[in-house]
Amino acid sequence: MSSFMRTNKTDNYNFIEQNRFNHNAVVQPLLTDLYQITMAYAYWKSGKTDNVAVFDLFFRTNPFHGEFTIFAGLEECLKFLDNFRYSDSDMEYLKQTLDANIEDEFYEYLRNLTAKDITLYAIEEGSVAFPRVPIIKIEGPLIIAQLLETTLLTLVNYASLMATNSARYRMVAGKNIQLLEFGLRRAQGPDGGLSASKYAYIGGFDGTSNVLAGKLFNIPVKGTHAHAYITSFSGISDLKTRVLRHKQTGITGDLLETALKHRNNLSNVLDISTEESSEGELAAMVSFAIAFPDVFMALVDTYDVKRSGLLNFCAVALALNDLGYRAVGIRIDSGDLAYLSCLARETFETIAERFKIPWFNQLTIVASNDINEDTILSLNEQGHKIDCFGIGTHLVTCQRQPALGCVYKLVEINEQARIKLSQDVEKVTMPGSKNAYRLYSTDGHALIDLLQKVTESPPEVGQKVLCRHPFQESKRAYVIPSRVEPLYKVYWKDGRICQDLPTLEQVREKVQRSLKTVRNDHKRTLNPTPYKVAVSDDLYNFIHDLWLQNAPIGELS
Amino acid sequence: MSSFMRTNKTDNYNFIEQNRFNHNAVVQPLLTDLYQITMAYAYWKSGKTDNVAVFDLFFRTNPFHGEFTIFAGLEECLKFLDNFRYSDSDMEYLKQTLDANIEDEFYEYLRNLTAKDITLYAIEEGSVAFPRVPIIKIEGPLIIAQLLETTLLTLVNYASLMATNSARYRMVAGKNIQLLEFGLRRAQGPDGGLSASKYAYIGGFDGTSNVLAGKLFNIPVKGTHAHAYITSFSGISDLKTRVLRHKQTGITGDLLETALKHRNNLSNVLDISTEESSEGELAAMVSFAIAFPDVFMALVDTYDVKRSGLLNFCAVALALNDLGYRAVGIRIDSGDLAYLSCLARETFETIAERFKIPWFNQLTIVASNDINEDTILSLNEQGHKIDCFGIGTHLVTCQRQPALGCVYKLVEINEQARIKLSQDVEKVTMPGSKNAYRLYSTDGHALIDLLQKVTESPPEVGQKVLCRHPFQESKRAYVIPSRVEPLYKVYWKDGRICQDLPTLEQVREKVQRSLKTVRNDHKRTLNPTPYKVAVSDDLYNFIHDLWLQNAPIGELS
Repeated sequence: MSSFMRTNKTDNYNFIEQNRFNHNAVVQPLLTDLYQITMAYAYWKSGKTDNVAVFDLFFRTNPFHGEFTIFAGLEECLKFLDNFRYSDSDMEYLKQTLDANIEDEFYEYLRNLTAKDITLYAIEEGSVAFPRVPIIKIEGPLIIAQLLETTLLTLVNYASLMATNSARYRMVAGKNIQLLEFGLRRAQGPDGGLSASKYAYIGGFDGTSNVLAGKLFNIPVKGTHAHAYITSFSGISDLKTRVLRHKQTGITGDLLETALKHRNNLSNVLDISTEESSEGELAAMVSFAIAFPDVFMALVDTYDVKRSGLLNFCAVALALNDLGYRAVGIRIDSGDLAYLSCLARETFETIAERFKIPWFNQLTIVASNDINEDTILSLNEQGHKIDCFGIGTHLVTCQRQPALGCVYKLVEINEQARIKLSQDVEKVTMPGSKNAYRLYSTDGHALIDLLQKVTESPPEVGQKVLCRHPFQESKRAYVIPSRVEPLYKVYWKDGRICQDLPTLEQVREKVQRSLKTVRNDHKRTLNPTPYKVAVSDDLYNFIHDLWLQNAPIGELS
Repeated sequence: MSSFMRTNKTDNYNFIEQNRFNHNAVVQPLLTDLYQITMAYAYWKSGKTDNVAVFDLFFRTNPFHGEFTIFAGLEECLKFLDNFRYSDSDMEYLKQTLDANIEDEFYEYLRNLTAKDITLYAIEEGSVAFPRVPIIKIEGPLIIAQLLETTLLTLVNYASLMATNSARYRMVAGKNIQLLEFGLRRAQGPDGGLSASKYAYIGGFDGTSNVLAGKLFNIPVKGTHAHAYITSFSGISDLKTRVLRHKQTGITGDLLETALKHRNNLSNVLDISTEESSEGELAAMVSFAIAFPDVFMALVDTYDVKRSGLLNFCAVALALNDLGYRAVGIRIDSGDLAYLSCLARETFETIAERFKIPWFNQLTIVASNDINEDTILSLNEQGHKIDCFGIGTHLVTCQRQPALGCVYKLVEINEQARIKLSQDVEKVTMPGSKNAYRLYSTDGHALIDLLQKVTESPPEVGQKVLCRHPFQESKRAYVIPSRVEPLYKVYWKDGRICQDLPTLEQVREKVQRSLKTVRNDHKRTLNPTPYKVAVSDDLYNFIHDLWLQNAPIGELS
């Protein structure tokens, strides 16, 4: 399918690096909740500077009533660790802001603090992730590990939510539909818009309308014109230029005149009165075609798709054809998208046949009016001829669930496991430092994610592994994996990033590869089957022993 | 009411200016949709460089099923205009990205483009605004006016949505409740979080947990500790320091010992077994109190509010009292907030009376578990004793409606009015450059917003004004205003900001002042009365004449 307003994507210019700093200027140690800093002082004051902690970053429920989540945001987290250092003005601000009794030595301590003693384990960015399996594990001195919490959550939550949302759009749209992110104006401000564009691309969108995102992240950018362009022309007299050189011969032709001629002719073929169609719209389209003869795409719903927009577009496209150019397509931004897209396709087919212009049938139909996952599902059911969706508000705000609830929980301190109990059993944390494995079946599908104590040996291919529900004693099963994937890699240790980080493209491909390993019944929109997350027998017993030790006296627990 | 972890807010340090640039690094001309730039080229190519346009920026519906909106984001828009200039790397990126046929002269034109020929009218930032009354009006050369669209929408949409959302929380909470924004970790990334903090403050919140927002915008920052702090202590043996000097005498006391003594005593008074309460929690609270004896506030729900948290807190607070300090209060982050807050208040009252410590009754109770507007309404109905809400996810994501639908419509070009028709009458635009007035009753309430053609004389105090529904002929009424407020001021003209801009504090005060002029029935949560927006008789006739001229032939319009 042809892409509209195709951009010349180059791989090697250096805008990305050049601009990265600006974009990340706000990702700094003060981008955190105040209580992290007050806790840091209290830890420091109570002599816990050398305590070593393990924190798990995980979510408890998949978003959008789904049964999977795409993990994203890891690279940003690593850059944050790499840059973690309080500036002089940070120190000055904190001294003026925090309780006046805080000791100066603490500020000295903060001034020298970096993330060099932290080890960060994570699953691969772009992987499918499931509830309660930590996606990031932080080990290191309690104070610095605690100070990372809010920023890591901020960087992971929205990134993963957007990547998941876009991946879901991609699934319902199917792989042959082009998906474009059009959400900048409805995002949470400028940087919200940039994050949306980036993670929509990772999740499976093909491009964005956001030019700065294109520049910063090397994402394809797309777009044609708005209704304002059409309404800025009230008639043919507004048209200052009407000529265009033939693409091959270079001979000047009158595009307006040719378009008018085709319009009269088409009026009969399509049974649409030229009187009903807008002259301003025709003038606007002619002018736009003169500006972009090679990539002409027009918005056809400013006045009336059926009575005006389609007729004018086809007239201009035929005129372009006479001058050796191929139009790209139309965009429909209102009305009944199923009906109008079928009408447009039918019109293109009629013209292709009548005028012997086979490519006319291949014109791209873009739709872009308040589209969400359900709209696409409904359009699929009704039948439609749309090639490309432009999606804004619902995509970037993640309307169905505008926040992913990642949490960051202390699970071990000085090699002692910690458990956070809760009356809500789903909120009980998995104590201790853990490893996570994904076990696969012979057909390559993921069977189960298994959490183990770090001291246990990994599950082995072909050997049966006892997988237990973390809280329900009776729920357990033996699994014989055909493949065992250790989910964690060390990404940050000894003050540096210790993996080659994938490019945005590679993360984007990882998403699709990872989704392929997930069975369809886990991925479907309606009543998906929950994917199983289990604990080893050792970890099960460990959890429940610790639970018992910590259970309050006098209450049935 | 006492504020917890009070920050020393200073008015005159220069972090704000120092940091502003970083925060706004992404608000640049490329932060736009690609189609603005392709349209710019097509306008340029078709000789429309000198066309003068008027665009209206407005919304069609109030968010959150309400009947008012707070306008915010104006200052950011003005800074954007002030900085509007394509950089060399922008030009390089555009040349590589846009259609290869674009003429070099266009890039020259872009390179020299600034917003100096634009005039920006707006209503005051922080004002109440209503559907279809433009909140910003842009006049100037078509191309540059068009190029501003997406960025202005991005800057206004989320800012106004957040300010409106926070103002609604403020209304349901009442003016005596402290409201804190805790949403950074659930916002749309780093900058989404910063915008949330800023506009929550403008809308009526008292502070934020976001330290960087505090530093950048001089907003009070608040916070104590998380559950992790409590769980990092497993018992009294974890407590390295237990002594604290008396606030007045300076004599060292053993805070732990005193707290343990009080705990035993309280155990009888409150009828809670000390065996049921957590020693780790007690140790954590003692250590926190030693770090922050003047501003001690503790999270009491890590194990069990009733059986553990309250007992431990009160014991530590009484021990602090013995050493001359006053505790600040507690935070409850789970469970039945109505019940637990009443239980806590009752406990504080009992202790105040029993131990003759009147201020104990004044301890602050903060609640912070997944709170939204409805939760507060329900708590109000049930009765609660909460002094302060910490609100995160629902506030910053504006869950009930995560986007405000501001649009930017061409209403005039070269002094010719433009109308955008639509089958949906609500989407028909108000053509031409307009003035807007707010008419007030004798009791100071806003009666109606009136749109007029710019050529009309303003409505006069004491004179009857014919106010018409823009689309329904029969709906009209005479209004005799006691006060007439012209809604627009010129904020940007001749390349500079031409009003003294209010501080954040002043905008925040404006919100409350402006809301006071709105009748309660427009502001109530349940079935609010729509506020009336009218057009003058002249404008009514003008709209409908133009509509008729533009109506398609052959259709009943």
